[in-house]
Amino acid sequence: MFCCLHKMAPTSLSERFKQSVTKDALRSYFAEFISTFFYVFAVVGSSMASRKLMPEMAVNPSGLVMVALANAFALSSTVYVAANISGGHVNPAVTFAKAVGGHISVPTALFYWVSQMLASVMACILLRVTIVGQVVPTYTIAQEMTGFGASILEGLLTFALVYTVYAAGDPKRGALGGIGPLAIGMIAGANVLATGPFSGGSMNPACAFGSAVVAGIFKNQAVYWVGPLVGATVAGLVYDNVVFPAQAPPDSLRGISDGVGL
Amino acid sequence: MFCCLHKMAPTSLSERFKQSVTKDALRSYFAEFISTFFYVFAVVGSSMASRKLMPEMAVNPSGLVMVALANAFALSSTVYVAANISGGHVNPAVTFAKAVGGHISVPTALFYWVSQMLASVMACILLRVTIVGQVVPTYTIAQEMTGFGASILEGLLTFALVYTVYAAGDPKRGALGGIGPLAIGMIAGANVLATGPFSGGSMNPACAFGSAVVAGIFKNQAVYWVGPLVGATVAGLVYDNVVFPAQAPPDSLRGISDGVGL
Amino acid sequence: MFCCLHKMAPTSLSERFKQSVTKDALRSYFAEFISTFFYVFAVVGSSMASRKLMPEMAVNPSGLVMVALANAFALSSTVYVAANISGGHVNPAVTFAKAVGGHISVPTALFYWVSQMLASVMACILLRVTIVGQVVPTYTIAQEMTGFGASILEGLLTFALVYTVYAAGDPKRGALGGIGPLAIGMIAGANVLATGPFSGGSMNPACAFGSAVVAGIFKNQAVYWVGPLVGATVAGLVYDNVVFPAQAPPDSLRGISDGVGL
Amino acid sequence: MFCCLHKMAPTSLSERFKQSVTKDALRSYFAEFISTFFYVFAVVGSSMASRKLMPEMAVNPSGLVMVALANAFALSSTVYVAANISGGHVNPAVTFAKAVGGHISVPTALFYWVSQMLASVMACILLRVTIVGQVVPTYTIAQEMTGFGASILEGLLTFALVYTVYAAGDPKRGALGGIGPLAIGMIAGANVLATGPFSGGSMNPACAFGSAVVAGIFKNQAVYWVGPLVGATVAGLVYDNVVFPAQAPPDSLRGISDGVGL
Repeated sequence: MFCCLHKMAPTSLSERFKQSVTKDALRSYFAEFISTFFYVFAVVGSSMASRKLMPEMAVNPSGLVMVALANAFALSSTVYVAANISGGHVNPAVTFAKAVGGHISVPTALFYWVSQMLASVMACILLRVTIVGQVVPTYTIAQEMTGFGASILEGLLTFALVYTVYAAGDPKRGALGGIGPLAIGMIAGANVLATGPFSGGSMNPACAFGSAVVAGIFKNQAVYWVGPLVGATVAGLVYDNVVFPAQAPPDSLRGISDGVGL
Repeated sequence: MFCCLHKMAPTSLSERFKQSVTKDALRSYFAEFISTFFYVFAVVGSSMASRKLMPEMAVNPSGLVMVALANAFALSSTVYVAANISGGHVNPAVTFAKAVGGHISVPTALFYWVSQMLASVMACILLRVTIVGQVVPTYTIAQEMTGFGASILEGLLTFALVYTVYAAGDPKRGALGGIGPLAIGMIAGANVLATGPFSGGSMNPACAFGSAVVAGIFKNQAVYWVGPLVGATVAGLVYDNVVFPAQAPPDSLRGISDGVGL
Repeated sequence: MFCCLHKMAPTSLSERFKQSVTKDALRSYFAEFISTFFYVFAVVGSSMASRKLMPEMAVNPSGLVMVALANAFALSSTVYVAANISGGHVNPAVTFAKAVGGHISVPTALFYWVSQMLASVMACILLRVTIVGQVVPTYTIAQEMTGFGASILEGLLTFALVYTVYAAGDPKRGALGGIGPLAIGMIAGANVLATGPFSGGSMNPACAFGSAVVAGIFKNQAVYWVGPLVGATVAGLVYDNVVFPAQAPPDSLRGISDGVGL
Repeated sequence: MFCCLHKMAPTSLSERFKQSVTKDALRSYFAEFISTFFYVFAVVGSSMASRKLMPEMAVNPSGLVMVALANAFALSSTVYVAANISGGHVNPAVTFAKAVGGHISVPTALFYWVSQMLASVMACILLRVTIVGQVVPTYTIAQEMTGFGASILEGLLTFALVYTVYAAGDPKRGALGGIGPLAIGMIAGANVLATGPFSGGSMNPACAFGSAVVAGIFKNQAVYWVGPLVGATVAGLVYDNVVFPAQAPPDSLRGISDGVGL
């Protein structure tokens, strides 16, 4: 918690914006960019690898294990490396929940979003360009499912993920604090294993957005925005107000590195 | 150990009940609800995903890897997030062992059970409703096995799990304390890999109960209650009395957050 | 390091034997029994589960992933729970290396071995009895391999495992000390993935012995004893004398809980 | 950071060379040798095991899961054991980046390289000799890919890996410092899952070199050197100058154990 940029209490919008372009803040955006880039690279790349190895089958159990492990491993690592710089969001839904809960300012959140979206699109472009003869896969929902059902699934998954992010960032963790990034990656992996063939198990609007942009297919894109953003916000509010209410008050003292960091 | 609710020593039943409905206690039940919900969601969901991907085969090696990883990852994460709030039981068998061993009061244990059962049923209902065209799978035992043999297997698995839970909650762990939730999730995953095609590898009455309620199939339900409850109780008594006897005496000082927490 | 039983320096054999039957020592043997039991249960059980799911194929990639994950997960957990009681050997080869290196006395090592062997045999008997219609699998070497080549492979694997055990038990680890049991389980899992279809990837004489006793097949048993015992001893001597020589001298002060413990 | 060998500031080349052959330095080279040996052993071995189990298919999803898990598990463990001796490079690309960034001297880096290359070649020879009837597999790129595209992929993967290595070695990590080796292994595993069937996912010139030497096939060897060395160097420079610039200045005080160590 060593870089408390913005005492939110009585600042004007322009003041807040200025606090969003300091050197420390720019470093945070950069850290989000790097981490989101490699997270999306691993998730989308493993999906492409699975298709390359079993072209005739859209998904199969081993392919789902591949994608789930790539998701769990990459998220653990990328949250870990960004944790004490940007808080290790690596996900616009986490950033959204933090902004709604007042942990980061709205201008800062917007810069986080831009970094995450840009990173996702660039990761998908790089995969598209270097891996010849493979299209970038987009998240799809099972034929028998409704878009509403898929949104609910994605919302639930993102609730679980963001709830874990909040728990991992809780300074009252004590000895358990150290494995936070692993807990975050693992719940993501478990969620992919549970819902991969139904809603895709995205939990991350940036990941869904980047692959959709590069593939040019925006079908069901709303599913991967509405569900995660609502699920994340509810998770953040529940954690701050129900699980550990004592912790919310002094949030004007919490800065950008709020999150898994410390 | 910062929320010692009930000094058990000389309290009446009504006194104990009152201690079970304080604000901290309610928070514990809520934490158990959330963690059990997402644990069951991942375990039952991954089993449904495996059937969706390979409809013709009941189970296959890759499908078992899916379920085992979902179990290991989800249990590690959900125990982690609940650890310093409710102790991170996420399993009625753990709660039962803690109540028998005198670590939590009977009224508190009952509230834990209600939270866990409710969470499991709701997770299975949500899976049933959102994922159209798939039934909720229940735990089954292999055709050639007896119910008694399956109970013994499930009892052994739960012994291993609860023994690990007690070891992880041991304040004498020192530097190793931090990875307790991972050790708990890993032994669960190993157990599923070892017994999945034989007894199912449930180790958790809530999980077996929720899927049975929603599927309406209660065949062999006793296997998933008797084995785990006996195994868990024996594990708790063995750990408290044989492995670390010095630790049991002052249990009147141990509160709800007893467990992995601190 | 809180239970230094035997100052080895100038004690007679009967003195050493007495120190091997104190209450703390008996607790250590019990901890080794429990941990080895569940480790062997998971490893042999997952091999049986793999055969049940794919009867026509002796081994296949998914089945090997099952066994390797069961090995990695179970070893991490069982080393973790026994770490600060018995040092978390869970393997006669580790015990052998510690005895040769002077970290534990010979009588203590013998009791460790008896506990580990008994645990392994009992785990295999329980699997045999409860899982009807399946034989207990034994470790076998690939048809094209020589017994000598397999011994060398097993020796190398055990060197890697025991070297990691020593590194994990090194008090100079600092912040890294906490994840020692995970590093131990992971190298075991990696080794199984590398050599499973060639030498079996046992690295543990107890595991090979228990399954051989219950199956009644002792072919190639020497491979799983000579390789691991030599590999483990060399690893221990190398670590103590080459990697961290400064650490070996005061070993008369190191007790039973020497190992991962503290 | 307890073995600061070479204050780089005003030393001559011969002085630096002398500092590269002290007892502590030799111990570092030995630690790199052991760790690289077992890392390459697991990665190349798991690839051979995958081919043995499914001879007709070059790669398949389960086989890729095998290799990715072997990579993740073995790298986590081997980085862990070498961390506080040599810094836990286990990869010539990491050593190269550290030398370019001024964290270790050039003579020391050369000795690291020799140790790593020798270890890799010896691991591949041992696999070749003990496992009869199997050739040592080399890294290959997919038929439809260009060598340039594969270099870029390998460079990106190595950037992610080395960036994580730098983050893990960052003394400002606090409570998160303990899981550094796991984060490093996990990003390697995720990268293999993402690019295995395209560029092979080597990220490690030693691993590619050793298998090429023993197999006698040097096709595309440049891909596995240029990409990783460039990617690693850029990652190191970016981390030192952009992410945590405050940390670079006193590098004359950082010694051989710089890295994950402390």
